[in-house]
Amino acid sequence: MEFDTIAAISTPMGEGAIAIIRVSGNDALHIGDKLYRGKKRLCEVETHSINYGHIVDPETEERVEEVMVSVLLAPRTFTKENMIEINCHGGIVSVNRVLQLVLKEGARLAEPGEFTKRAFLNGRIDLSQAESVMDLIRAKSDRALNVAMSQLEGKLSKRIQKLRRELLETVAHVEVNIDYPEYDAEEITVNILMEKAEIVQNGINRLLQTAEQGKILREGLSTVIIGRPNVGKSSLLNSLVHDNKAIVTDIPGTTRDVIEEYVNVRGVPLRLLDTAGIRETEDIVEKLGVEKSRKVVSKAELVLLVLNYNEELTTSDEELFEISQGSDRIIIINKTDLPEKIDMKRVKMLAGNQFIISTSLVNDEGVDELEEAIKQLFFSGEIESEDLTYVSNSRHIALLNQAKKAVDDAMNAINEGMPVDMVQIDITRAWELLGEVIGDSVHESLIDQLFSQFCLGK
Amino acid sequence: MEFDTIAAISTPMGEGAIAIIRVSGNDALHIGDKLYRGKKRLCEVETHSINYGHIVDPETEERVEEVMVSVLLAPRTFTKENMIEINCHGGIVSVNRVLQLVLKEGARLAEPGEFTKRAFLNGRIDLSQAESVMDLIRAKSDRALNVAMSQLEGKLSKRIQKLRRELLETVAHVEVNIDYPEYDAEEITVNILMEKAEIVQNGINRLLQTAEQGKILREGLSTVIIGRPNVGKSSLLNSLVHDNKAIVTDIPGTTRDVIEEYVNVRGVPLRLLDTAGIRETEDIVEKLGVEKSRKVVSKAELVLLVLNYNEELTTSDEELFEISQGSDRIIIINKTDLPEKIDMKRVKMLAGNQFIISTSLVNDEGVDELEEAIKQLFFSGEIESEDLTYVSNSRHIALLNQAKKAVDDAMNAINEGMPVDMVQIDITRAWELLGEVIGDSVHESLIDQLFSQFCLGK
Repeated sequence: MEFDTIAAISTPMGEGAIAIIRVSGNDALHIGDKLYRGKKRLCEVETHSINYGHIVDPETEERVEEVMVSVLLAPRTFTKENMIEINCHGGIVSVNRVLQLVLKEGARLAEPGEFTKRAFLNGRIDLSQAESVMDLIRAKSDRALNVAMSQLEGKLSKRIQKLRRELLETVAHVEVNIDYPEYDAEEITVNILMEKAEIVQNGINRLLQTAEQGKILREGLSTVIIGRPNVGKSSLLNSLVHDNKAIVTDIPGTTRDVIEEYVNVRGVPLRLLDTAGIRETEDIVEKLGVEKSRKVVSKAELVLLVLNYNEELTTSDEELFEISQGSDRIIIINKTDLPEKIDMKRVKMLAGNQFIISTSLVNDEGVDELEEAIKQLFFSGEIESEDLTYVSNSRHIALLNQAKKAVDDAMNAINEGMPVDMVQIDITRAWELLGEVIGDSVHESLIDQLFSQFCLGK
Repeated sequence: MEFDTIAAISTPMGEGAIAIIRVSGNDALHIGDKLYRGKKRLCEVETHSINYGHIVDPETEERVEEVMVSVLLAPRTFTKENMIEINCHGGIVSVNRVLQLVLKEGARLAEPGEFTKRAFLNGRIDLSQAESVMDLIRAKSDRALNVAMSQLEGKLSKRIQKLRRELLETVAHVEVNIDYPEYDAEEITVNILMEKAEIVQNGINRLLQTAEQGKILREGLSTVIIGRPNVGKSSLLNSLVHDNKAIVTDIPGTTRDVIEEYVNVRGVPLRLLDTAGIRETEDIVEKLGVEKSRKVVSKAELVLLVLNYNEELTTSDEELFEISQGSDRIIIINKTDLPEKIDMKRVKMLAGNQFIISTSLVNDEGVDELEEAIKQLFFSGEIESEDLTYVSNSRHIALLNQAKKAVDDAMNAINEGMPVDMVQIDITRAWELLGEVIGDSVHESLIDQLFSQFCLGK
């Protein structure tokens, strides 16, 4: 395909040792040569070479930056187009100035994800691979990283393609039957249809089984710590954060106050909600009380409810039990270094079959047991497989569910003795839906929307 | 020189399209080859080449990242050592994992600035050039960038070296006179000494003349907006920020709440202090009142005092005049769209010969005049030269002042008829002090301390 030449800063914003401006398209080298002064012109050097020199303002020949320019000629590049990467000293002003010069010489500022989009549109990777590029960047744990890496290598794509081939063969078979009804007995066709549909159904089911974990690996398990003041919520937060190196992310597009902290507990990425609330003085938390907890709990997938071993259960405790009733929950009985005053029978009754972990956080006791419980709760035994074809992306999960439904419909239609050309409609629909996962049959506006979630310069 | 192999992440932390891990030292390629899987081994490829492949965990051969590895062989590299740069997808987890693998294979985590330090210790650049690398990164305006760039190219170094040569010749001359007193009449020696000392004194003075502006260009002119509630402080802040694209920097090592905003007003980089205070509700500001203003004003180099044209001067206004008395100040009379109620005579009296600018910020009137006043105040006419050898670094300024004093001492000694070998001590001292600017005669601990202010990976 033919596109214009795009450019963007591809390193995170901020002062750093290196900043890179990426330029991709037919004019990339031409634009580079207008600004670059070095031993040779960029259009004369070999592909995949690094070239030392300066970027100048061509109007004044004034030196703007000392750079290394990487020249990458199509097709062995990220976008399958000619590319240059201008490696600058990482200052905000200097990098922006170089970018401005590149744009002035005819490049267009790339939209978020546009480089990866070109890799997709130019056929280097399919859509699920392109999406995994962003998953790789956003991965919050080693395991999530592995899943993204395997998706980038095309493991999910291969599975989907296999399922689509099965469906295509089925459709072809039905076509033959429709065109040459005398060629095959209807009954045999129906049997083959049913067999193939089952194979595909099983395949989709296997993928969907990994979806819940895949999604959590990708997005983190949203987790909230609740409890009355002074039961040890801050201590618990600190233990988790301290043991597991938190990754703190500002959420783009919101105020600076909304931050997310991720901790990786034995392979389970916890996204800790409302940590600011916990870090505020206990006094303020007291005032906000149960009402606020109810709000946060409603957004959480895992609730850590902390109680005080050394105090009797209060109405607030009971209320906290009540508001977190429907959630995955671990009850933490803290301060076991002090005498027992809590009614453990009552706690056990309220907890039902949920985990109860005793801790003495001041002595760093019980945290191991808690982390083990979190791991068990998440990797509910069976699926901690070596097979990393987790389906982690909500879009993929939705498409797989729809495809599954289409296959189910086809199977029902067969069972109800519907004519095969009616069944074919459902089969074709399933084939198309699976195609959307890898981008074979996706509407342009969806593609635009998908890539717009990428970061700039990717 | 021989050093161990160091490694660091050289792009700013955060999710981005590209992240780079830099490795420098004898073992760089060897370490790279343990982790890199591509077409060829890194030790077999040409220098300044870019190599596509994967980073694996060598224990399991599991793929950790898809990478492009730049191979740069000594001496044509940033550090003058063998280097590799591992260009990864910019995820926080994946990049850290690659770094961990590099460290596991024998590299040491680089200290801040250690790559640049090696460039200095290996003789590629001198100390003032090394310092300019960080200035380049931290530059807050195009002009500051130009100053840093010219310093990196060695323009300051050349001037310093020229002055040192003059001093050295003088010393040599004095030596001859001491060793062979019959060879030259004492009187002639004294004349030559005086002449050379004056040349050097003038040279140092010329450099110091640019120092004040240089320092502001480098660090920004700390600026505060004060005024009673509802006079239009927020509007003024927004006008300045909106017109001039603010650069917001988190100050490392402090809480998230301390941020600095830079705006580049006609070439003058303003560092806006206490903008958080202004963005709080006026209600809170009201409570903090004059006392807080006094504190902020004491830290500012420029005060923008906003008054309300539509209200009479209050005691608070008078107090704000008083606390900002000693500072460079611009008086802004806002809300000129409303009827005059302020006593302009009194304002003029209080302002003395300082700028008074009338604005109607709701109508975007008067902002141009304000920006022009800021420019005039800063570029006080004469020095807006094309010569960019600004001395911008506090360390350099201090050394130049000391060197100047040593030269002055020498001249006084000559005038007082002191023996030439006494004069020689002062001249030698001046020569050494100038040497410290370019790192010719600097103590190791100072070097360590200088580079520790760099960012990681540089």
